[in-house]
Amino acid sequence: MNPFADSMEKLTVDLGDRSYPILIGDNLIRTAARHIHPILTGNKIVVVSDENVAPLWLEPFLGSFEGQGLSIETVILPATESTKSIAHLQRLITEILDFSIDRKTTLIALGGGVIGDITGFAAAILLRGIDFIQVPTTLLAQVDSSVGGKTGINTSHGKNLVGAFHQPKLVLADTAALSTLAKRELLAGYAEVVKYGLIDDFEFFEWCETNARALIDGDKSARRYAVLKSCQAKARIVTADERETGQRALLNLGHTFGHAFEAEAGYDGRLLHGEAVSVGCVQAFELSTRLGLCASQDTIRVQKHFSQVGLRASLLGLVNINWTVEKLIGHMQKDKKSEDGKINLILARGIGKSFVANDVALAEIETLLRKALADAQI
Amino acid sequence: MNPFADSMEKLTVDLGDRSYPILIGDNLIRTAARHIHPILTGNKIVVVSDENVAPLWLEPFLGSFEGQGLSIETVILPATESTKSIAHLQRLITEILDFSIDRKTTLIALGGGVIGDITGFAAAILLRGIDFIQVPTTLLAQVDSSVGGKTGINTSHGKNLVGAFHQPKLVLADTAALSTLAKRELLAGYAEVVKYGLIDDFEFFEWCETNARALIDGDKSARRYAVLKSCQAKARIVTADERETGQRALLNLGHTFGHAFEAEAGYDGRLLHGEAVSVGCVQAFELSTRLGLCASQDTIRVQKHFSQVGLRASLLGLVNINWTVEKLIGHMQKDKKSEDGKINLILARGIGKSFVANDVALAEIETLLRKALADAQI
Repeated sequence: MNPFADSMEKLTVDLGDRSYPILIGDNLIRTAARHIHPILTGNKIVVVSDENVAPLWLEPFLGSFEGQGLSIETVILPATESTKSIAHLQRLITEILDFSIDRKTTLIALGGGVIGDITGFAAAILLRGIDFIQVPTTLLAQVDSSVGGKTGINTSHGKNLVGAFHQPKLVLADTAALSTLAKRELLAGYAEVVKYGLIDDFEFFEWCETNARALIDGDKSARRYAVLKSCQAKARIVTADERETGQRALLNLGHTFGHAFEAEAGYDGRLLHGEAVSVGCVQAFELSTRLGLCASQDTIRVQKHFSQVGLRASLLGLVNINWTVEKLIGHMQKDKKSEDGKINLILARGIGKSFVANDVALAEIETLLRKALADAQI
Repeated sequence: MNPFADSMEKLTVDLGDRSYPILIGDNLIRTAARHIHPILTGNKIVVVSDENVAPLWLEPFLGSFEGQGLSIETVILPATESTKSIAHLQRLITEILDFSIDRKTTLIALGGGVIGDITGFAAAILLRGIDFIQVPTTLLAQVDSSVGGKTGINTSHGKNLVGAFHQPKLVLADTAALSTLAKRELLAGYAEVVKYGLIDDFEFFEWCETNARALIDGDKSARRYAVLKSCQAKARIVTADERETGQRALLNLGHTFGHAFEAEAGYDGRLLHGEAVSVGCVQAFELSTRLGLCASQDTIRVQKHFSQVGLRASLLGLVNINWTVEKLIGHMQKDKKSEDGKINLILARGIGKSFVANDVALAEIETLLRKALADAQI
């Protein structure tokens, strides 16, 4: 009898010969080897983690491999967004090459989105591509960044401007890891959970409204269900459009606004990515309402849900005199999804009814942002 | 009437939705726009070249785009192998991002293998992948590195250890560019031409024996034919095995030895890559003969052809007391194609009959290298 079988969910991201399973459950880190060992092609793994996660989870993770005769190396990176830089990538690559890896070596990312993104990118470019496995330890990473194969680093020009599509061989989402997260970080990840309901699943948004409190307070089955539904939604969209030529852009709901807010806030921890997404989603719905696309009660309902769970739903207390509409527009025009200076947005005809909008007038976006900045200074 | 039609060859590298044409002919650089403009998805191109090629070919190339309303930017890199470093990659990426590129921007590599490899890699990772076009100006790049989608840079651990598979949208091989090459560089490229005959085309090797002199002396139709046959051979092998899981390794004939010689020589210009390949091919044939796989007259014939055209066929005059069998073996074990310390080689049962050999005893390779080093010190 497998004592964990009853609490484990499994789904598959179906991408032909790049397909891979996602396992979701409690204690997957302590039992990682049983899932990882069978899919290794060689006998060497390199585990990449960060200074926050390693003290908590590296030993349980490595313990599961004891006595299996593998060659195991570890690299511990600083636990900040600035780790996703070309300087850290260069150091990471050099350290990994120091281990005399070959094409059968597997990299394992044990940590949040930063660790997953930089480790996945290192796997994408080392020896022109080696295997990697995601073991996401934050809610944000479990429901978003560990699934779908987007990897990358930031440059002085913006976030994720350098990277690759490189699918993992396996994702192990251990809900036990969520119990060690700060509440603010958990909430930031929850913003991405809600996003899936907003995109195309009204019922799931209703589930969120009903179960958010239990999830946030630590209910394991609520957490497992939220991660499962989020991964299913992301897997479905990624399967339909792996390289983001069309519908995958829906995953960007709230993100074009959100990235602009993050860039202006300066990545110093005052505005977490998930918080930028919750504010961004509210802005996307407000713009949809302003354009006559979406009933105002839907927009109010979205804003209310974020506020009720304790998530940021506006820029209140964040902006200062240096924030201008022009600068925000500049960030949005530099977004990877924008082309020829035109801003591509995800808008909505209601909760669960989002769509790609390529033809929004710049003046409408400016008016919206002017109001958001004015409201934030009240 | 197209004055160039009679002298242009076209072939297609068939890789499904990543298929692309290779055009081979005289004056393709001066007429580049007519081939490039129709396949651009956006209106911005960034041309990357080097300090040797730009003074000769950048103006004719850019001239062809005059009056077409495109936004054209250029980046000129130093013309050395050391340009293929992470430091130069970082600078290149920053310069390109400074041009406010988007996903419809196309990078164009105008130069030899170094420019093609680093530009292709930049295209692979900028915005997680943008289009790029190869305009190879050396024989080596035209017959080898510009075709097949291998891109990358070197690290202190070895050559091409960081990179990506990223296919170009088009390859323009202008035989006029070959007339500006130093003879030694032309010959180095010719080693890769001969390699295709050695791999699996005895008739083409015979053609090389007959036509090498004309090709080297500047005969345009001989050059065009050699580039065409080489690209056809490479396209055929790449089509069968894009990501080098099997037969693509045949293209590595002479390269595992060659890379070890290059690493030991130190990339300072005393041993060009193509020269390392000609010596490496001779070593591969010698080992095949030593193992009783290949008639000795074939090995002698290979060696003789390289020598007759003026290519290096041994390590004579190159090695000093610091070259040891142990160090060469160390380099070979670190080769990307090696796994678990085992050296994978391409051997031959005769000219045009090469195969992947994964089970060569280390002692045999050591004996061969000991002889090669001893012969070089006579």
